[in-house]
Amino acid sequence: MSAEPSTGTFLQGLERGLAVIRAFSAETPSLTLSEVARGVGITPATARRILLTLEELGYVRSDGRRFSLTPRVLALGWAYLSSLDLGDIAGPFMEDLSAKTRESCSIATLDLPDVVYVARVPTSRIMTVALGVGARLPAYVTSMGRVLLAGLPEAELSAYLDSLVPEQLTPHTVTSVDELREVIARTAADGYAVVDQELELGLRSIAVPIVDSRGRAVAALNASAHASRTSRDVLLSDVLGPLQECAGHISTALQRRGRI
Amino acid sequence: MSAEPSTGTFLQGLERGLAVIRAFSAETPSLTLSEVARGVGITPATARRILLTLEELGYVRSDGRRFSLTPRVLALGWAYLSSLDLGDIAGPFMEDLSAKTRESCSIATLDLPDVVYVARVPTSRIMTVALGVGARLPAYVTSMGRVLLAGLPEAELSAYLDSLVPEQLTPHTVTSVDELREVIARTAADGYAVVDQELELGLRSIAVPIVDSRGRAVAALNASAHASRTSRDVLLSDVLGPLQECAGHISTALQRRGRI
Repeated sequence: MSAEPSTGTFLQGLERGLAVIRAFSAETPSLTLSEVARGVGITPATARRILLTLEELGYVRSDGRRFSLTPRVLALGWAYLSSLDLGDIAGPFMEDLSAKTRESCSIATLDLPDVVYVARVPTSRIMTVALGVGARLPAYVTSMGRVLLAGLPEAELSAYLDSLVPEQLTPHTVTSVDELREVIARTAADGYAVVDQELELGLRSIAVPIVDSRGRAVAALNASAHASRTSRDVLLSDVLGPLQECAGHISTALQRRGRI
Repeated sequence: MSAEPSTGTFLQGLERGLAVIRAFSAETPSLTLSEVARGVGITPATARRILLTLEELGYVRSDGRRFSLTPRVLALGWAYLSSLDLGDIAGPFMEDLSAKTRESCSIATLDLPDVVYVARVPTSRIMTVALGVGARLPAYVTSMGRVLLAGLPEAELSAYLDSLVPEQLTPHTVTSVDELREVIARTAADGYAVVDQELELGLRSIAVPIVDSRGRAVAALNASAHASRTSRDVLLSDVLGPLQECAGHISTALQRRGRI
């Protein structure tokens, strides 16, 4: 086969190649050719062409039978992260916030149905949730997700909620879609969201939006805390103010440098 | 055009698509179609097909004229990071090391000519070098790079050194390739590398290998410190021991869980 089928302008080989990269995960760090084919839903012949291409380009290595990803794959995500340039622009503000509030803080963006962590400043206190850049969590059950959902156009939010099947992650998780709709409306009105042990017992977090020059929420900034150490009242009385101030600085800095 | 040319099993559309993603950077966070074509060395028609495919898949967005990456791109790098599972496996050991030594520590892997950061635990002291996961530095001028170069087969190391043009980053940078060859040989003999203000004035770091079950260096662990606070002697007397112990724990844990 020396030509690759494609529909109109759409490049199927590119789509499938990206799907093959995403087939690897913590549960499946290495895959055989037939596991890749099955996982992505392509023929073994196509999987072979994609894996050999990725191997030739240095994104994949193999021991002959099993394939795994190489660190070169990180260059792809890095292209996004460095084009946001959050490390340089937001990093100093986040470190200042973390020092002031003594809580871990993070920035995430929305990639429905998830939020994706794009920056994180952990505190030295060890958290049970160890989330790195690139990590994903369901939007509906995180404070950053709710802030970003509150900023969506009504039609997009409805489409998301209509297809949502919330999972009861803790006894506190809001699992009624109608109630979630209200929580998100309240978040839009308040300008912040608090999630209190809905994602994980013992974990509270508060988030505010990072906005572009038109006031649209393009990312969210949060502070997260051990519930045993930081009450909901303290989040509102001591953390919300510095969090909003920090988000304001970051929004302005990103706007000024043309990143959002 | 409804078919995509390819040579044998090699998928050119996939290669070019990945090159388009990598064309975005901190310097070029958004690009026009013709900038992408020029940057990647493809025709505008090909650039258009790739960008429209990436946009349809949600990896790219556009305002009509300028294209930029979306957070979905992070899912690609995340596939690699989560398949390594360093956060869960190495994270606790690294936090312990950072607490013990009061220095930032990182893990990197080799993607010649660079090292790529795959995990990092910063200290609360703000470092002038703020390196996130996915960041790259030239291998020859970093302690982790030298440890990983010391573990390469002789032929690969020679090929790398033969094409290397070292840059004088500080007055201390070793820029003679012959001298670098000796430094790397000494690193192999010592089992660790110290880089003393060669990358950046005021920054010292020490690194040791993380090894697979056959003893091959597959990653490196380092601790980095302000030169004004931590002398080279202190790195060797106080930091090297805990660093080696930590690398041993991580090597064992990664081997046991089949990650390396």
